[in-house]
Order: sequence, then C-alpha cells, then structure tokens
Amino acid sequence: MDHHHLVHFLGLLAIILVGAKIGGALAQRIGQPAVLGELLAGVVLGSSLLGLVDAKDEIITLLKEVGVIILLFEIGLETDLKKLLKVGGASVAVALAGVILPFSLGYAVCWAMELDYLVSLFVGAALTATSVGITARVLSDLGRLQDPEGQVILGAAILDDVIGLVILAVVTGMAGGAEVTALGVAQTTGIAFGFLVVTLLLGLWIVPWLDRILQVFRMPGSPTIIALVVALGLAWLADQVGSALIIGAFAAGLFQRELPMHEEIEKGVASLGHFFVPIFFVAVGAAVDVRTFNPLDPAAHPILLLGGLLVVAAIIGKFAAGFAPFWFKGNKAIIGVGMIPRGEVGLIFAGMGLSSGIFDRGLFSAVALMVMVTTFIAPVWLKWLAVPKKPQRSDSEGIEDLVAGPREED
Amino acid sequence: MDHHHLVHFLGLLAIILVGAKIGGALAQRIGQPAVLGELLAGVVLGSSLLGLVDAKDEIITLLKEVGVIILLFEIGLETDLKKLLKVGGASVAVALAGVILPFSLGYAVCWAMELDYLVSLFVGAALTATSVGITARVLSDLGRLQDPEGQVILGAAILDDVIGLVILAVVTGMAGGAEVTALGVAQTTGIAFGFLVVTLLLGLWIVPWLDRILQVFRMPGSPTIIALVVALGLAWLADQVGSALIIGAFAAGLFQRELPMHEEIEKGVASLGHFFVPIFFVAVGAAVDVRTFNPLDPAAHPILLLGGLLVVAAIIGKFAAGFAPFWFKGNKAIIGVGMIPRGEVGLIFAGMGLSSGIFDRGLFSAVALMVMVTTFIAPVWLKWLAVPKKPQRSDSEGIEDLVAGPREED
Repeated sequence: MDHHHLVHFLGLLAIILVGAKIGGALAQRIGQPAVLGELLAGVVLGSSLLGLVDAKDEIITLLKEVGVIILLFEIGLETDLKKLLKVGGASVAVALAGVILPFSLGYAVCWAMELDYLVSLFVGAALTATSVGITARVLSDLGRLQDPEGQVILGAAILDDVIGLVILAVVTGMAGGAEVTALGVAQTTGIAFGFLVVTLLLGLWIVPWLDRILQVFRMPGSPTIIALVVALGLAWLADQVGSALIIGAFAAGLFQRELPMHEEIEKGVASLGHFFVPIFFVAVGAAVDVRTFNPLDPAAHPILLLGGLLVVAAIIGKFAAGFAPFWFKGNKAIIGVGMIPRGEVGLIFAGMGLSSGIFDRGLFSAVALMVMVTTFIAPVWLKWLAVPKKPQRSDSEGIEDLVAGPREED
Repeated sequence: MDHHHLVHFLGLLAIILVGAKIGGALAQRIGQPAVLGELLAGVVLGSSLLGLVDAKDEIITLLKEVGVIILLFEIGLETDLKKLLKVGGASVAVALAGVILPFSLGYAVCWAMELDYLVSLFVGAALTATSVGITARVLSDLGRLQDPEGQVILGAAILDDVIGLVILAVVTGMAGGAEVTALGVAQTTGIAFGFLVVTLLLGLWIVPWLDRILQVFRMPGSPTIIALVVALGLAWLADQVGSALIIGAFAAGLFQRELPMHEEIEKGVASLGHFFVPIFFVAVGAAVDVRTFNPLDPAAHPILLLGGLLVVAAIIGKFAAGFAPFWFKGNKAIIGVGMIPRGEVGLIFAGMGLSSGIFDRGLFSAVALMVMVTTFIAPVWLKWLAVPKKPQRSDSEGIEDLVAGPREED
C-alpha cells in the first residue's frame, strides 16, 4: 500500500466513523434507533450520493466483516442460552414459517410476472433471508433484546441464517446445473446445524480450561483479545466446514458468557464494537444505489412494479411468520416485524443472483429495493411497536414519547 | 475482496493477536516489557521464520498505521502538557544531541569503510531516528512514563520525529539530484514544527466547543469515537501539510486531555489500543528478516561488520545524547537508553534508501541490523535501569525483582 493510498484511507475511516455517529445521533433525536441513522449515513456516503464509500473495497469489506463478527459475538455474550432454549420451540416455528411463507409468496409474484422458474426460485430464496444483525441491534438500542419476544427473534434469525446457508447452497447448485440430491441437501443441512451444536457443547465443556488460560494473560485488556481470538477462530472454522462466519462468532459468545470474567470481556468487546460495528452498517447502506429507483425514469417502472410486489410479499411473509407459534404468550407482531429486515443477507443473495447470471441488472435492482425497504422499515416499525424499556441516553425523550405508539401486550 | 481471501485474513488476524498476546505474556514472565515479546512474535510470524505475516500487505499496513496512531493518541491523552513543557529545555538538548552525534558517528563509520558520500549521508540520517512508539510503550509497561525522565524522552522523541521529517526531506531531495537550499530546509522545518504548535494552540482553544459537540453524542462509546475521529483527522491533516501522521495523533491527544470527559475517552481508546497496537509491533517485527545475518554464510560477513559498527555508533550516539542536558537532575542513563530504539522509523529510512537505489541489498541489511539490535536491546536495558514503579499485573513478580537491577537515582 503506497503512502498516499494509506493516508487517503485513514481520512475515509474518519469520515465513515463520524458519519455513522452523526447519523445515529440524528436518528435518536427523532426517536428512531441509531442503526437506522447509520444505514442512512451509508446511503449518503455510498454509491447513491457522495460515492466516498465503495462497499466492494477490500479493506472496507474486511473491517465490515470484523464488525459483524464482533456484533454477533457481543450478542452471543449477552444471550442467556437457557432463556434462548426456553423459547426454542417458538423460534423454530417462526424460522420455518419465515422461510416457507416468503419463499412461496416471492415465487408466486415471479410466476404472476411470467418469469423463468430458476429466476423465481432465486427470488424466493432471497426473500427468506433475515438480517439478524439489524434486528438485534434495534432491539438492543431499545433495551428489549432480553424480552421473550427478543429471544424468539434472535433464535429464529440465527436459525434462518443456518437455513439460508442450505438454501443458498441448493439454489446456486441448481443455477450451476448441478443435480440436487436429497442426500446433498441433508448433508449441507447437517453440517450447518451440526457445527452450531457441536461448537456449543465443546465450548461449554472447555470453559474451565479457557478460564485457566485467560488467567495467564494478566495484562489489562488481554482476556478480551483472547476471547475475541476464540470468536475469530470459530468464525474461520465455521466457514471452513461450510457454515457461516457469524454462526461461529455467535456460538463463541454463547459459551464464553459462562467465563467468570465475562463482564470484563463484554465491556472490552463493546468498546471494540463502538468502532467496528458502525462500519458494518455504513457499508450495508453504501451498497445500495437508490438512483436505480428514480420514479421519473420510465425504464425504472417495471423494476419498481416488481420491486413493490416483492416488498409486499416480503413484509407479509415474515409478519405472518411471527404468528406461527400460536402458543407463545407475547407480542407476536413484534416478532413478525423483527424478522422483516433482509439487510446484508438479502444483498448477498441478490449479488449472487447477479454474478451467477440468473438476475439481470433490473431483477437485481428489484430485489435490492425489497432488501432496502424491509431493512429501513423494520427499525421504525419495531420502535413504534416496542417502546424502549430502559431509558435511552438521548436528549429527546419527550419527542420520543410523542412519536412512539402504545405498546401492545397480549 | 473475494470470500476466500477475506476468511483467510480473519484467520491471520486471530493468529497475529494471539501471537502478540502470547509473546507479551512470555516476555513479562521472564521480567521483560510486553512489547519485546510482541516484536519477537512478529519476527516468528514474519518473513524470517513462518512467513505468515507479510509486513508489506495492504491491510496489515493499514491496521498497523491505525495502531500507531491510536498508540500516540493514547500517549498524548496521558501526557500533561505542562509537565512536558517544564522539561522542554532538556528534551530539546537531548533531541539535538541525539541527531548530531549518531549522524556524525554513522557518517564516520561509512567514511572509514570508504563508502560513497551520498550513501554515508543516508546511513547517518537513518541513525538519527528514534522510535517514540517503542520507548513510550516500554516506559508505559514499566509505569514510568510520568517520571521526569519519561517526559524528557517523550518530548525528545517527538522532536526527533519532527527533525527526522526534515532530514528525510533533505536527503531524499539530494538523492533525487535536487539542489538543497537553505530556504527549502527552513521551509520544511517551519512546516513540521509549525503544524505541532498551531494544532496545539487551536486545539486548546476549541476544547470548550468540542466538549459541547461531544455532549450531543450521548450513546455509550460515541465520545471516544468522535475523539478518535479528531485524532485520525489531524493525522491526515498533518500528512497533507507535510508533517507526520503520528504528530497529528499525538497533538490530538495532548489537547483532548483537557476535555471534562477525558477519562471515559482514555478508557475507550485503551480498549481499542489492546486490539490495534499489538498489530503495529507484530508488523514491525515481521518486517525484519533475521536470515540475512547468518554468521555461517561468508557473504554475510561484510554486512555483519558494517552492521556491527553501525550498532555501536547508534548506541553510543544516543546514549551520550542523554547526558546533553547537563543541568537536568534525574537518571540521564535512562534518557540515553530510552532514545536508542530506531524501530519502524529506522526501517522507513532504510526502506527509502533501498527503493531510491542509494542502498544495495547489503547496505540495507546492515542498516536493518542496526535497527533491529537497537530496537530489541533498548527494552531489556531500560527494564534493567528502571525498576517498574507500579506493580505490573504479572504472575512473576518474584522473578522480576531478581532479574531487574537496582535503580540509580542521581
């Protein structure tokens, strides 16, 4: 890296961080979750407007991935496994319904628009994604991640990521002309779920040894870094065996919560998160090009029509999925809305559709529109359904109370 | 960045972090400063042995620069400007003697070896560098950064960095065949010192405004990130006007220490430092190839001879400079030894000599040997002279007391 490029990047890093913090502060000021402001800061800095942040840049990609790994690690550290398992049945119901309903609705929309069956499959698959990062961050911003509803959403979103891996493997296999066998699908499914279960069991088993290892590193901050190394290592391992990076990071957080010094680790990871996590959301925002949806451009009309129908399918599918666990006593609307944002996961699906040649530029834009609307609508909607529990550190408490609607309790 | 490359890099990041922490813990266990272990971890991971860490890699370079910026920002935040100015005279004397003596000795060694005069100038220039990062980290590890000796070293090392910029501009100008005018030298000097002074004065002036801005960002961790953005911005600006990145970061720390919430910021920056700073030291260690100095290889003998003489010149020059402020009441040997490590600054000089064609591979290796020996010897020597003041968080206090020599007080 030559000196000029390096210095340019340091300046860009400063702009990304300050943009994210300004966006977050402005969003809070109008009573919205900070993450919405970070995403919008990304749209402003990204290809849509200023063109400063290139979401495909090598270094941005790396920093962003470190950001989402730290975010899921943090969420794992904050998650009580027992509480998560207690709502496990509800999570499974939401996850399954949240895959089947959006997939069917998306496929139906494409069929009605007379699209090819492989294209329809891929669009349907893109609708099944859930961005666990965005929902978890919103719930965490509102202080409601620990609620039963929050735990159901978290569990279902993680399961959705695992299911998403399987679907992605199947549809890309089909796109590549490979024969999809029941055995192959079972194998992919087994690996994806197996990694999570095995890592957790092994992790809980080695906690006493890990604690003794951490005792050796007595320099301030070292336990945090070693714990983070475990998370990075498991993220790497998850990828190597065919699972997803964030599944490894989340599992590392879940079992390291059992460490006696987990509070010190949580604080240190949170400090790193303040730096890395906003980079992730800015990069997600920067990846979207809003100019594709200019309603004054007639060429954009079919894209807007398909995109609009997909938005409706995407919202109805996930919202209805929230009501699948009929036995669950809690606010099912919150669960449904919590599953709506597609975020970076949806963009990954859309990007793979484009790069594999199944989507043309217009189809890609339509799917991106669906991703964008669901991503931006969910934080606002959630905020409206779930009044913040713990007081947010914001100057605009009064405005918030006016803007936020009443919280429904079933 | 393709997915494979990304995942590979995440694994590498885990290895760098765990290597640094293991090296640091081992060094502390035998009573040495942690930074020595981090540098040696770099040698093991770098081109000399395992070849895992490529110090020239784009992303490593960026993370490493963020690391040294955070380190100097942290040191600036910890530095009391009044205390620094109080020993200002001593710092100036040490800095000037620490440039003149090593330069003359280095030039003399090259003259005795019958080297070209331009080569001799460049070698002399490489001997004037001081790695403020390494010395400050050692003193901080030993809890002695706040001592008068520590403040003199810090001031002199910062001045040396500014002088180094001027020398680098002059010798590269001469290497490029440009005519070096007194006016040009004065201009470069003026910019380098002027930036530091103007930034500090302006910074101290805007502190009340900055405080009010920080009050707006009430999310946990946000003040730290905004303060860091100021440091990144000033580092960028310093580079733009022809000064050095770390000068900007240090100045940002110095004036932001006056913020009412500076303790919260210090804690947050320290957490980020636990992640980024070790990457810097590992990368510095990885840049050194110890195989060039194999004494069994006859081809290495002239390199070893020249390198050995330069090591002696480099050590004597800086050690003697510590005694230049004859009026200073304190341990002058600590000051002299504190100025010895050339670290990354020396490597930058050597690298520029090589890339501009003034050094051949052998000369580069000889200068690199000088850099390496001074970098590794200083922490051990300093540790021996300056018994740690605050108890280090280490299991080996007993061993340390045996290893460490008595502290001399003048």
